[in-house]
Amino acid sequence: MSEYGAGIWLFGQFVDRYASDAYGPPVTTVQAIEKAATVPGLKWLDINYPFNSPDETVADVKAALERTGLRAIAITPHIYMRQFAKGSFTNPDAKVRQAAVDLCKTGIGIADELDAFYLKFWPGQDGYDYPFQADHARIWDLQLDGVRQVVESAPERQFAIEYKLKEPRNHMAFSTAARTLLGIEEIGAPNLGIVLDMGHSLFAKETPADELQLVHRRGRLVSVEVNDNLREWDDDMVVGSVHPVETLEFLWALRQIGWERPVLLDQFPFREDPVGAATLSIKAIEGMERMLDRIDAGKLKDAQERQDALAAQAIVLREMVGADA
Amino acid sequence: MSEYGAGIWLFGQFVDRYASDAYGPPVTTVQAIEKAATVPGLKWLDINYPFNSPDETVADVKAALERTGLRAIAITPHIYMRQFAKGSFTNPDAKVRQAAVDLCKTGIGIADELDAFYLKFWPGQDGYDYPFQADHARIWDLQLDGVRQVVESAPERQFAIEYKLKEPRNHMAFSTAARTLLGIEEIGAPNLGIVLDMGHSLFAKETPADELQLVHRRGRLVSVEVNDNLREWDDDMVVGSVHPVETLEFLWALRQIGWERPVLLDQFPFREDPVGAATLSIKAIEGMERMLDRIDAGKLKDAQERQDALAAQAIVLREMVGADA
Amino acid sequence: MSEYGAGIWLFGQFVDRYASDAYGPPVTTVQAIEKAATVPGLKWLDINYPFNSPDETVADVKAALERTGLRAIAITPHIYMRQFAKGSFTNPDAKVRQAAVDLCKTGIGIADELDAFYLKFWPGQDGYDYPFQADHARIWDLQLDGVRQVVESAPERQFAIEYKLKEPRNHMAFSTAARTLLGIEEIGAPNLGIVLDMGHSLFAKETPADELQLVHRRGRLVSVEVNDNLREWDDDMVVGSVHPVETLEFLWALRQIGWERPVLLDQFPFREDPVGAATLSIKAIEGMERMLDRIDAGKLKDAQERQDALAAQAIVLREMVGADA
Amino acid sequence: MSEYGAGIWLFGQFVDRYASDAYGPPVTTVQAIEKAATVPGLKWLDINYPFNSPDETVADVKAALERTGLRAIAITPHIYMRQFAKGSFTNPDAKVRQAAVDLCKTGIGIADELDAFYLKFWPGQDGYDYPFQADHARIWDLQLDGVRQVVESAPERQFAIEYKLKEPRNHMAFSTAARTLLGIEEIGAPNLGIVLDMGHSLFAKETPADELQLVHRRGRLVSVEVNDNLREWDDDMVVGSVHPVETLEFLWALRQIGWERPVLLDQFPFREDPVGAATLSIKAIEGMERMLDRIDAGKLKDAQERQDALAAQAIVLREMVGADA
Repeated sequence: MSEYGAGIWLFGQFVDRYASDAYGPPVTTVQAIEKAATVPGLKWLDINYPFNSPDETVADVKAALERTGLRAIAITPHIYMRQFAKGSFTNPDAKVRQAAVDLCKTGIGIADELDAFYLKFWPGQDGYDYPFQADHARIWDLQLDGVRQVVESAPERQFAIEYKLKEPRNHMAFSTAARTLLGIEEIGAPNLGIVLDMGHSLFAKETPADELQLVHRRGRLVSVEVNDNLREWDDDMVVGSVHPVETLEFLWALRQIGWERPVLLDQFPFREDPVGAATLSIKAIEGMERMLDRIDAGKLKDAQERQDALAAQAIVLREMVGADA
Repeated sequence: MSEYGAGIWLFGQFVDRYASDAYGPPVTTVQAIEKAATVPGLKWLDINYPFNSPDETVADVKAALERTGLRAIAITPHIYMRQFAKGSFTNPDAKVRQAAVDLCKTGIGIADELDAFYLKFWPGQDGYDYPFQADHARIWDLQLDGVRQVVESAPERQFAIEYKLKEPRNHMAFSTAARTLLGIEEIGAPNLGIVLDMGHSLFAKETPADELQLVHRRGRLVSVEVNDNLREWDDDMVVGSVHPVETLEFLWALRQIGWERPVLLDQFPFREDPVGAATLSIKAIEGMERMLDRIDAGKLKDAQERQDALAAQAIVLREMVGADA
Repeated sequence: MSEYGAGIWLFGQFVDRYASDAYGPPVTTVQAIEKAATVPGLKWLDINYPFNSPDETVADVKAALERTGLRAIAITPHIYMRQFAKGSFTNPDAKVRQAAVDLCKTGIGIADELDAFYLKFWPGQDGYDYPFQADHARIWDLQLDGVRQVVESAPERQFAIEYKLKEPRNHMAFSTAARTLLGIEEIGAPNLGIVLDMGHSLFAKETPADELQLVHRRGRLVSVEVNDNLREWDDDMVVGSVHPVETLEFLWALRQIGWERPVLLDQFPFREDPVGAATLSIKAIEGMERMLDRIDAGKLKDAQERQDALAAQAIVLREMVGADA
Repeated sequence: MSEYGAGIWLFGQFVDRYASDAYGPPVTTVQAIEKAATVPGLKWLDINYPFNSPDETVADVKAALERTGLRAIAITPHIYMRQFAKGSFTNPDAKVRQAAVDLCKTGIGIADELDAFYLKFWPGQDGYDYPFQADHARIWDLQLDGVRQVVESAPERQFAIEYKLKEPRNHMAFSTAARTLLGIEEIGAPNLGIVLDMGHSLFAKETPADELQLVHRRGRLVSVEVNDNLREWDDDMVVGSVHPVETLEFLWALRQIGWERPVLLDQFPFREDPVGAATLSIKAIEGMERMLDRIDAGKLKDAQERQDALAAQAIVLREMVGADA
């Protein structure tokens, strides 16, 4: 059975371009940790740095983790705030690019102090918005150069890139699993891999279980995040709420590769109680794990060997909707 | 418990623009009826006219139906073949438009002879492909005029339009439930309604359960078809294979409006056994009906009254993936 | 030649869920008016109420308009802020629904004082996020009831609904032109119509020029907004930057219906200078208007009469990309 | 100035699942060549093998090419017909996989005889339709193995894969440029590259100009095809009819990499005259090439250096819609 974690933003304050007064009051990092700790089964957090409140220190955060028994699995530097609106690693201004690299290097120190497994790059502002805006080769170079500078500065530290098709940029440079793999292999550092977010994968018109094997095959799978969406935007909904079949297939794929690290939640419950939203997601995953336990793996593999869609679907639909065998 | 039916094409020969030698051998209408009859629980057929083989007669088809115990629920005239490539009711050529009207009128006679409940319009060639190609007001006028001519010619006969966003045309005039309702109300005939195909609804970025209530509210729901897809094309897959949650919600919505007529399958199992594909779909629906029986309707309605996403999802995910209450 | 206007938010502060410290500093309503006034050719503003700064009064705004020579074409009440996160007119809490109605009624007074042509409803929080979350019939009832209360309270005042598929809600109740028309006709008030935002139309998989004629045909076209996007999200980009052909077709459609009111910009230039972004959009529209002047209308209509895609495209591509006749 | 070519299917018979009696009469390969020869400026053909009519020989085709002055640029084996419905290289049946390899090897001979530049793989049936249907790692292995067998059998011959997201399969294994690059690099053969179809790129949510540089950077760009679509399906429309800006950017990107080989058309004018459709596309490209000649490259590069969206758009919109400088 997997352990569970979450991006700490799940327990924070949400804002968007319409409710510009935010969907709720501000939440400090320590408060978010305390909320997270009330979710049954949640053990790990991906923590943003800088922390939510300017006067929170690493010591505060460390103390909150120890107090609650949670652990940091990752540190995600805030390289997508106002300062980086026109890009972090790909910013046209060399000084801003340097600031992004510096912030990530500071993040490494935080990751060390909090004993986190990896530092996550989420370069959501790196890319372009308009046709003709970018010299695409140069964007790609800058993207790789920035990441390379950080990962080469700490060869013992694990790093991982979370890709997404778009948002906040209209086009992100690390858009899909395959593009990100190409970039990682071009960078050439052994300590750099991928965070595969299942929702981002659905959004990118990928099949998450398929990309999982591809990233694993290349030895670059560092972490996985789960959530759901309507396949056309990163809606960050409760796990299984829209695509339980593909989620089950993704969990099955995790078993196939022998995944033993935590499974993380990446949700934005704008209008829901975060603790309830995370709790329901974990229950959904656990229910699906039990379904996988019940499924006759030999029979499923046999159907897949024959690429027999109906036989495979019959196995799944029997479990999921009680379709009579 | 609903009765089940299917579009007869599910049991026919499939072709597409790549496998132009077709995915299998030709199938006559009588052969398709005989295949359909082997699907447990299947009772109704939506039958295309002209029949698949030029030498098949209404008597042949009637005899096959009687022999197998199946019944015609609908007749769907073939107004989307080569003759109607540039449109049936919206064809720029008045003679072709007349041919479409005439074929539909012939179809009415077939529907009478086979005692079908409704004649279905599937004007898949009516619309446009390119920007600037069409005078949209004129397309709309032609679309309504053609349908009006047919439905007014047989005031005792029930008619229904099946809408879809696109395919084969890049843009169809009857693209969504709401547009089709507007057209129907402009036509003004009481004997004209809608066939709501759940897959077309997903494809059109609608919520099928929502459109169901809208069409029902206007008194225009004639029939429903179910299948599944990846939300971006009319993939016509096995029921529940991708969107079991939305399918369950659609079946729930059918209960809310007191639906007692058959539920029809609209599938294109290009590479699968049609009988197996239809059988699995019916089993999936029946499984979902049992899930709905188990769901505490009062609790669900209470959650919906509060628009409580998590409470509603908890009820559904408990049934669907065994998420612990 | 049209007059031009813009949503005042184009000149305001942008924020999203990532750059939660905003893409720039706060901008008061008066400051936004002053910025807008520097855009050559811009004459009209759609103004949000409450104003951006809590201490700005109607008198302040009126004075700024007079000082700059700009005029208010519309007032758009802020019914999508934190208070209305779970819905304005469709909020499950009757008190919040009442607050939405009250705010709109206050907005009517503002519209009167600023001599605006219409009050705009933008109920972006009205709808639902998850399958099974909503009793769709009840959402629809609440949506219509709230709008009805406002429009019936001021029979002399013009009102208009701006529809969109999603965002901030995952599903909005007024999602498409046709659904909104059905709602408006069910409400039954003569003083209620539609703001057709071309970008929302592209996003909803509509053809904007087609929906324009449909809304006009029903006598419900109150205003139009233009912008561009990648067809899968409301990216609110510069006019013509992605879909110049469909934009040209939309402007052509406006000519066909004899449109004489302003054309409004609805853009979110997160990373660009708002004045530059608005200026370029107006220049693009003016360029396209000159293209339409050069196009042989008789020839185009003749091509459309024949639904001749190539003939129509030849006319357009000659103008747009210099495709040789 | 580029030379132009086309996929020979542009001049053939079209069929789809609705107009199963086809959009026109059968066309032999020789007849298609003769039609193609009437398109001003068209010099090259990508020719399917087996030929359209079973009694056409290579000698017939060679004679037709010589007679018309056209040349074969590529041979595309028909590995997506009925025999390969469940896959060509990924078919679960080893005998069918062998048949696909054999057909491609036969195609090599044809390519040699017709002096074609490359043999194209279009494995449209390779992939899967349903969740859980496939062991994705195995599909990927089979996909690479089949291609490897062919390309290693003829080390002097150039090969190229044309990727697409879906259709006819619901999911193709070679879905995007980046995935295909990963596959090609895993195969490891120097004589294998990519055919970048601009429409497939738009459909895959890629930016065509961006993928072009990525494929070129890896030294794997063999050929390019152009057409247009609505970004959600492979509509294969006239060049520039929907996305002239991205098409212009693609042509600009071709200049940046010094492209000197032909530009090919890949269109399916179901309802239009193929000769007219191809002619208009070539005129559109030529018009766009003249636009690129007029554009101040230094100014554009300067805008791109600054990633200045408005400056870049101003340059483009001035040319495309006459937006005043």
